[in-house]
Amino acid sequence: MLPFEMAEYQDRLRKTKERMVKSGVEVLLVTDPANINYLSGYDAWSFYVHQMLVVSLEDLQPVWIGRYQDANGARATTWIHDDNVISYPDYYVQSSFYHPMEYIAHKLEQMGHRKKYIGVEMDNYYFSAKAYDVLKTNLPDATFKDAGLLVNYVRLVKSDQEIEYMKKAGKIAEETMYKAVQSVKPGVRECDTAAQIYSQLISGTDEYGGDYPAIVPLLPSGRNTSIPHLTWSDRAYQEGDTVIIELAGCYKRYHVPIARTISVGSTSEQLKNISPVVVEGVNEVLNAVKPGVTCGELENVWRNSISKRGYEKEARLGYSIGLNYPPDWGEHTASIRKGDNTVLEPNMTFHLIPALWFNNYGIEISESFRVTENGCETFTNFPRDMIIHPPFMMNQHDGKIS
Amino acid sequence: MLPFEMAEYQDRLRKTKERMVKSGVEVLLVTDPANINYLSGYDAWSFYVHQMLVVSLEDLQPVWIGRYQDANGARATTWIHDDNVISYPDYYVQSSFYHPMEYIAHKLEQMGHRKKYIGVEMDNYYFSAKAYDVLKTNLPDATFKDAGLLVNYVRLVKSDQEIEYMKKAGKIAEETMYKAVQSVKPGVRECDTAAQIYSQLISGTDEYGGDYPAIVPLLPSGRNTSIPHLTWSDRAYQEGDTVIIELAGCYKRYHVPIARTISVGSTSEQLKNISPVVVEGVNEVLNAVKPGVTCGELENVWRNSISKRGYEKEARLGYSIGLNYPPDWGEHTASIRKGDNTVLEPNMTFHLIPALWFNNYGIEISESFRVTENGCETFTNFPRDMIIHPPFMMNQHDGKIS
Repeated sequence: MLPFEMAEYQDRLRKTKERMVKSGVEVLLVTDPANINYLSGYDAWSFYVHQMLVVSLEDLQPVWIGRYQDANGARATTWIHDDNVISYPDYYVQSSFYHPMEYIAHKLEQMGHRKKYIGVEMDNYYFSAKAYDVLKTNLPDATFKDAGLLVNYVRLVKSDQEIEYMKKAGKIAEETMYKAVQSVKPGVRECDTAAQIYSQLISGTDEYGGDYPAIVPLLPSGRNTSIPHLTWSDRAYQEGDTVIIELAGCYKRYHVPIARTISVGSTSEQLKNISPVVVEGVNEVLNAVKPGVTCGELENVWRNSISKRGYEKEARLGYSIGLNYPPDWGEHTASIRKGDNTVLEPNMTFHLIPALWFNNYGIEISESFRVTENGCETFTNFPRDMIIHPPFMMNQHDGKIS
Repeated sequence: MLPFEMAEYQDRLRKTKERMVKSGVEVLLVTDPANINYLSGYDAWSFYVHQMLVVSLEDLQPVWIGRYQDANGARATTWIHDDNVISYPDYYVQSSFYHPMEYIAHKLEQMGHRKKYIGVEMDNYYFSAKAYDVLKTNLPDATFKDAGLLVNYVRLVKSDQEIEYMKKAGKIAEETMYKAVQSVKPGVRECDTAAQIYSQLISGTDEYGGDYPAIVPLLPSGRNTSIPHLTWSDRAYQEGDTVIIELAGCYKRYHVPIARTISVGSTSEQLKNISPVVVEGVNEVLNAVKPGVTCGELENVWRNSISKRGYEKEARLGYSIGLNYPPDWGEHTASIRKGDNTVLEPNMTFHLIPALWFNNYGIEISESFRVTENGCETFTNFPRDMIIHPPFMMNQHDGKIS
């Protein structure tokens, strides 16, 4: 069932341990589900209870610790030997009396980690303030260090196999965007377009199925296009609406997001003016991508491009993408923004989404790309423009506007 | 856009403040997205960045604090006045240099909360160890208290309007389960059944659209039915497979889950033996539900019921449900398990899911119910039995097995 060769997992573990040594961490408690998956293969919707992977410099294998009923999943989906799968009884789950970290602290002590330098992922969704408190109380002789993003930074440069999975995710994203654009018509409800999107994302292709994206499809319409993170309603599209669609194809937990903006029938003057500015900016940024350039320099390209036209944008332009779980498909490492000194390397992968939001409208035209040896390539092939619809209906299989 | 009357939000706020007084909390920092929604109406997929609602005993209105680009959403979806919507600049987002809680601590100080007793939701997914550390460092004179589940306990008993929303979610769940059962056939891929499920969940009905559930549909098949939280693959169903389907209808963030087990063609002796035991146990528990009974007593009914047949189960049987966001639709308050002394009251709502997992198979037959004045009623009306399929095909509109 493993999606990667053993050698790749070993390589990831080796790089993680190198970073642990540099950070003065002897034992790393990995709680980010994407990091757990990355190192072990573990893949299940069990992250709503406390669980972790324990990586010790001294041990050849990580140890998986989670809920009793999830241990079968750890045995089935990881390369970890069965005797390195440890589980806590169900009365620890969401209880007022017991906390899983009490059990886990005890196990860590038994594993000889009582006085160790222990790294924890301090700002992860799945490492709560209480989890940390209970660990510290029960391991008073350990020294805790913030090892947040330690594994995330190992994930920043993708392997060829990871790129293959992202290409499959890109194919799903592309096909889904065609379906989504076709479904947007006056009288159709936002929820029905969302349903079409989901259906295509999950079915995937005839050759391979799709996985659930870490963020739901976002598809605000009308005035709500000024509000980027609203989810759908059952409002029906109207003539003159603008509709933003942001979605990600997902394959084996690898994501490729894409966003487009659709104008239903007549287009406002504002959108007519702004859309070529965004497209030009995206093109200029993509042209500037190559190894050796920094993320901050890409932002500068964008800023210069749109400032020529009299626009500015405060929010970041994009972020590193790949393997992930809800609630975010971004990797929380490199961002395409001012001051980010990440130097681009081949097989880094980003979602470039220079969205612009105003008081009562917004526009999003995005591309996910991979840094290549001398430039970049996008994961999807979809007309990079605002979609004016009808009379221009998308023709699904040649990718042209007919 | 508000889904509830102002009086209902005021009532929720009043009950929250009563609990704050009892807990010695002067200012409550609400970070659970369901609790934020419950008190303010706020509804957006923005919880992947730090945000909160500040409830102070002294103030008539809560204050929303979040990311700059999400402030429009707070203004659009809540009853909070615009001047109580505060946002932090984008350079705080997922940065190595800045943390949103620095900004928020500064705002809390400006609001006069420097020396207050401040309640925080210690074990929530959206209150990380780092968020707590940064707050403590920047508000050294405040006294922090664990107010985890304070608002969740207010949510435990539903209003009539909430029950109406759950009935709508129940209708979606019921229709979706019919579609799902019909789609399971030899040769069909798990992902295609998952796509059908999503399509129906999100489209909802002709009268109202559906919302995204806080957990993805879970549909393990074959040997994987022993692994409760695996998500789908693109494996095709085979004659002789067992398929477990657990899904939730969702309407305005209110959930009604349901699980059923399908036997594709021939059924194993094991399942033939165990399924009537589960159904009988579920029936006996539902018959025992009424105000005044405790959750622990319901577990006892179940335990006696299955022990007559020679079975036992370690995991909890169920949990309180309602309003929620990923990664969990359970409310983390009352659980139907040994030692839970929650006394049932009318309009408490639960998912009763006494799943049984063995080494290489499992069974789930669940019901979501509301406690009534003198018993209970289920939110869905779906044959409560293992589904043997074919020759018994489900007939969608009369709910009978034909």
